[in-house]
Amino acid sequence: MIAPVVPSSGTLRPLGLDRVRVTGGFWAELQARNAEAMIPHGHEWVERVGWVDNLRRAAAGRLPDGRRGPVFADSDVYKLVEAMAWEAARTGDGALDSTVDDLATVIAAAQEPDGYLHTGFGRAGQAPRYSDLEWGHELYCYGHLIQAAVARLRAHGEQTLTEVAIRAADHVCREFGPSGRVAVCGHPEIEMALVELYRATGERRYLDQARLFVDRRGQGTLADIPFGRSYYQDDVPVRTRDAFAGHAVRALYLACGAVDVAVETGDDKLLDAVTRQWERTVAARTYLTGGMGARGEGEAFGEDHELPPDGAYAETCAGVASTMLSWRLLLATGEARFADLAERTLFNVVAASPALDGRAFFYANALQQRVPGQPPDPHRPSPRAVSSLRAPWFDVSCCPTNVARTVATLGGIVATVDDGGLQLHQYATGTVAAEVGGRPVALRVETGYPWDGTVRITAEHDTGPVRLRLRVPSWASGAVLDGVAVPPAAYTTVEGDWRAGDEIRLELPASRPRFTYPDPRVDAVRACVAVERGPLVYCAEAVDLPPGASLDAIAVDTAVVPTRGPDPTLGPDTVGLTVRARVTMGGGPEGLGGGENRVDAVAWPYRSRPGPTAGGAEVAVPMVPYHLRANRGPTAMRVWIPARHSQHEERA
Amino acid sequence: MIAPVVPSSGTLRPLGLDRVRVTGGFWAELQARNAEAMIPHGHEWVERVGWVDNLRRAAAGRLPDGRRGPVFADSDVYKLVEAMAWEAARTGDGALDSTVDDLATVIAAAQEPDGYLHTGFGRAGQAPRYSDLEWGHELYCYGHLIQAAVARLRAHGEQTLTEVAIRAADHVCREFGPSGRVAVCGHPEIEMALVELYRATGERRYLDQARLFVDRRGQGTLADIPFGRSYYQDDVPVRTRDAFAGHAVRALYLACGAVDVAVETGDDKLLDAVTRQWERTVAARTYLTGGMGARGEGEAFGEDHELPPDGAYAETCAGVASTMLSWRLLLATGEARFADLAERTLFNVVAASPALDGRAFFYANALQQRVPGQPPDPHRPSPRAVSSLRAPWFDVSCCPTNVARTVATLGGIVATVDDGGLQLHQYATGTVAAEVGGRPVALRVETGYPWDGTVRITAEHDTGPVRLRLRVPSWASGAVLDGVAVPPAAYTTVEGDWRAGDEIRLELPASRPRFTYPDPRVDAVRACVAVERGPLVYCAEAVDLPPGASLDAIAVDTAVVPTRGPDPTLGPDTVGLTVRARVTMGGGPEGLGGGENRVDAVAWPYRSRPGPTAGGAEVAVPMVPYHLRANRGPTAMRVWIPARHSQHEERA
Repeated sequence: MIAPVVPSSGTLRPLGLDRVRVTGGFWAELQARNAEAMIPHGHEWVERVGWVDNLRRAAAGRLPDGRRGPVFADSDVYKLVEAMAWEAARTGDGALDSTVDDLATVIAAAQEPDGYLHTGFGRAGQAPRYSDLEWGHELYCYGHLIQAAVARLRAHGEQTLTEVAIRAADHVCREFGPSGRVAVCGHPEIEMALVELYRATGERRYLDQARLFVDRRGQGTLADIPFGRSYYQDDVPVRTRDAFAGHAVRALYLACGAVDVAVETGDDKLLDAVTRQWERTVAARTYLTGGMGARGEGEAFGEDHELPPDGAYAETCAGVASTMLSWRLLLATGEARFADLAERTLFNVVAASPALDGRAFFYANALQQRVPGQPPDPHRPSPRAVSSLRAPWFDVSCCPTNVARTVATLGGIVATVDDGGLQLHQYATGTVAAEVGGRPVALRVETGYPWDGTVRITAEHDTGPVRLRLRVPSWASGAVLDGVAVPPAAYTTVEGDWRAGDEIRLELPASRPRFTYPDPRVDAVRACVAVERGPLVYCAEAVDLPPGASLDAIAVDTAVVPTRGPDPTLGPDTVGLTVRARVTMGGGPEGLGGGENRVDAVAWPYRSRPGPTAGGAEVAVPMVPYHLRANRGPTAMRVWIPARHSQHEERA
Repeated sequence: MIAPVVPSSGTLRPLGLDRVRVTGGFWAELQARNAEAMIPHGHEWVERVGWVDNLRRAAAGRLPDGRRGPVFADSDVYKLVEAMAWEAARTGDGALDSTVDDLATVIAAAQEPDGYLHTGFGRAGQAPRYSDLEWGHELYCYGHLIQAAVARLRAHGEQTLTEVAIRAADHVCREFGPSGRVAVCGHPEIEMALVELYRATGERRYLDQARLFVDRRGQGTLADIPFGRSYYQDDVPVRTRDAFAGHAVRALYLACGAVDVAVETGDDKLLDAVTRQWERTVAARTYLTGGMGARGEGEAFGEDHELPPDGAYAETCAGVASTMLSWRLLLATGEARFADLAERTLFNVVAASPALDGRAFFYANALQQRVPGQPPDPHRPSPRAVSSLRAPWFDVSCCPTNVARTVATLGGIVATVDDGGLQLHQYATGTVAAEVGGRPVALRVETGYPWDGTVRITAEHDTGPVRLRLRVPSWASGAVLDGVAVPPAAYTTVEGDWRAGDEIRLELPASRPRFTYPDPRVDAVRACVAVERGPLVYCAEAVDLPPGASLDAIAVDTAVVPTRGPDPTLGPDTVGLTVRARVTMGGGPEGLGGGENRVDAVAWPYRSRPGPTAGGAEVAVPMVPYHLRANRGPTAMRVWIPARHSQHEERA
């Protein structure tokens, strides 16, 4: 099975990348951009910044001299190789296959005889192996190495990379097994990788080691640090925590590994624990975009309801990790809510990272940009994760390769099967070929989703009875299947035989814009409103405002339904919206700073009367899909805009 | 003149600590706590953590072995010595004098023959001198050394410390003068210290060097770092920036130095530039408490109106620095707004740091605490600046000694003189003795301020004509002087001869609680209200709420005037308040986390309708002065509480 996650049990079974093909529309365009730009761009940069050379130097015995990049630089080479391996499997691109082989040869040559592999430790002039588990990322790097190797193994059978990964994993089992060091890595990742290697090879010791790492976490084997042990989830055992906390990517990778361990060992209590944590995190620690991680400091989840739009870190990698977790929970349980969050996160976090040309990326994904900011240098890695515009590469460049491997495997999360049927979780134009109850099923899906809500599903040949389940997204109140209303936030079932050419038609109300209001405990966006359409979150960019209006001094009139608005030329298929608002402030002096974020001549911003929420001129505010933001140069931006409620709503 | 800031020109002239004595009430209590607890506590800790020993080791040639603490540890010894020097001058405490002499001897012995003095650089096994100007803090440490020496010089005349400081300053002038390194320190501080040394010694070269440092800043001589050069104000020259930005303490110390340089060189353009930056910072980058610095990451100012209450860093040291800057601007201009901000900041940031016992401190001063949090270890330095409760000491422990030196000099900012009169800026029970127009003036002030608004001022002997100016705070609408209404946010003038026993009576409406609303652009507290009384900001602590009510699910009824409420026993003189609110949410399950911040079983916190702002049970919410928060164990806390506006206000 050519898929990243292949559990041996669970409610649903994945279909490989060879069984589900995305051939048109939103995701196909992104996959094409991945193949043509993002992956080659990543390859250029890992060479340019010397991260592949680190491995070459290791092989040649020339380290530590000239080692470049952060301590975890090896991992980005591995993630890129993983992306290439899936992409080559998806498209049959022979040149890409050769590139993977070349890189695998470099990686293999860098491995030491006992299986150890890391360019930053263990040599004369370097710190000893495993001397800095808090920050050294050695086990984290093995995790990405193993995931790349599993990709290659599943796509091509045993290869150089498989052998490297098995040697590394065996080394880890010796060093960190029951009679080895009682320790975990500062950055979870190896847990899920070891489970997948177990699934791919059948070697039980990898699963046992993964379970050991999951159970050891939270025992305080790592040092206390200024961020606290919660930073690397070593404060509370996985089984007893309430919600995801600390560094968001670390927390979510660990949760993925815990689900994998739970599924393979039949540990329902562990699965329930992670599911509870997911529930609370989604209820109180997740942005409207699906973004996770409120704090830039420590790249961390905040407390419940601490979700500032401007400070939002919502790291791209956390979006990737959240999608990975949702997918695992969906396979384990079959519940629509997990596919729902995955969709939201893919459209509004993962797809929001790459630029339209696939050669620059957002690392952090704030929901408000107060000032236009400066464009990053297109020729140098950005030293900063947070910026108002996408950067070509980063000193810490985990996100671009993580997006690349995720996009290459998107087909794998479209559909699943169980004993009696086939499930469609995500809607994209393409084909699904599966075996259900021993019979081949082949469906063709055609849709303009997410720009349009019509999904047509056609049988490509005759089948016997198949139970087809279609996810109706949680936002899709009013969805209709072949003329019959179907409820949202659930799967709707179509039972029956299919003959070649039979077609069903799901109508999702994706053209209808929606106003969305925050839970009153999400303090940072109180009395504001957001606009969504289908699975897409929209935002207002200051470049679209008429002169004199500012994103900081308008109130949206929620009594006026948003209209399909002028499309700000962000692509041939996009849908722009326009909302009506009133200017709430203005007419003051141009301010000290000028421009969009001006400060009127107000001596003290706290007063004896509340500020105006009404009055002022009416203004049309164009809105663009959030994932397309910041593609027209520096500008201020808001997802949440102050609302001018009607009296009816005030009393609700 | 026994005062920290003695400009040679300006609108107002300070009075020394020997001329203004605070003898009772709020500030006298804090000064007593400083003498009895904060200063001895600081002395215990700088010994305990080895920071004085670093200097002893330097003298004995035993460094770098055994050096402890952060690179700037020397500076906390200097700040403590400065606090002791002022305190000894204020009280005549001979034992404290001896302690200062002992520490001065230790410091002097650590200085190298050419004047260099730092325990972290320049020895075999250490980085070379000035090899890390970004983070090395060598010039910063000289700054605090010089300020301590000036304190000692003004209180006692030439001493060991004076000689040490002059040798260090001369060394700096050689190394960093016009023909030396074209460089600045990563942490401004030496600028204002050099100006003060010039003022105390008359040696012009110190002023010239300070001006050189001010003018060099913003030229990019320091490296770009992940935080950006704005972190240390090296992105934009002092004269051309719009607002304070980057690391708040760095920005404010630099502004102090720039004002000092401007005043001494008659550089009105520089003074105007800093004043404009102050204006914009106060209008858009300052918390209701006077706290500055919105971001924990980089300890930095945010963008305009980026003022999250929960993420608020509002470092205690930034409050100290802001008070230092306000005082300098007040002396230069005589404008009431500077004294106003100083008062707000002293009561709600500086006085909020120390615990009631003077042996634990807040480093960061958030305006919202979402969860009760864990008490810090009372026996170990806290590794974290941000916590929900005060800690005895910190790994980076700049704040406790900064509070100590500020509290010791509070008398110095109560009153000033000019050619024709005397000005009272702050209200505290005590005495003021000055010379005005060559005639001695002696006044006695009696007040229960800030708990009570009555201020009685009595002449202690006959004088000729004196123009007395009394600051009427900006919040004091309805103030009355001897039965006559006087306008707020300005000085009110009393002209005439005084005879012994003559009394005037200023009635400030300090007993009247006020609701305060944010500028609508301060997004993070939209639709919320705060409660103030006199110069004090109040907060609600969850420990005071009835069972079932949560700080996250109430709305204050702003149509009901707050009442003098049950005093939660935070001291004999405090005034508690009570506001009326409605419970807006609740009745759900106890939640996964339980307690004050519970999460109801809500799957997704974004909805198609706004949440309720009315309805629910009425609840009385006790409020305590913000500076007294967190003195009763862990608890959630809010300054800004959602408001349930009346319809009248909605339309305002």
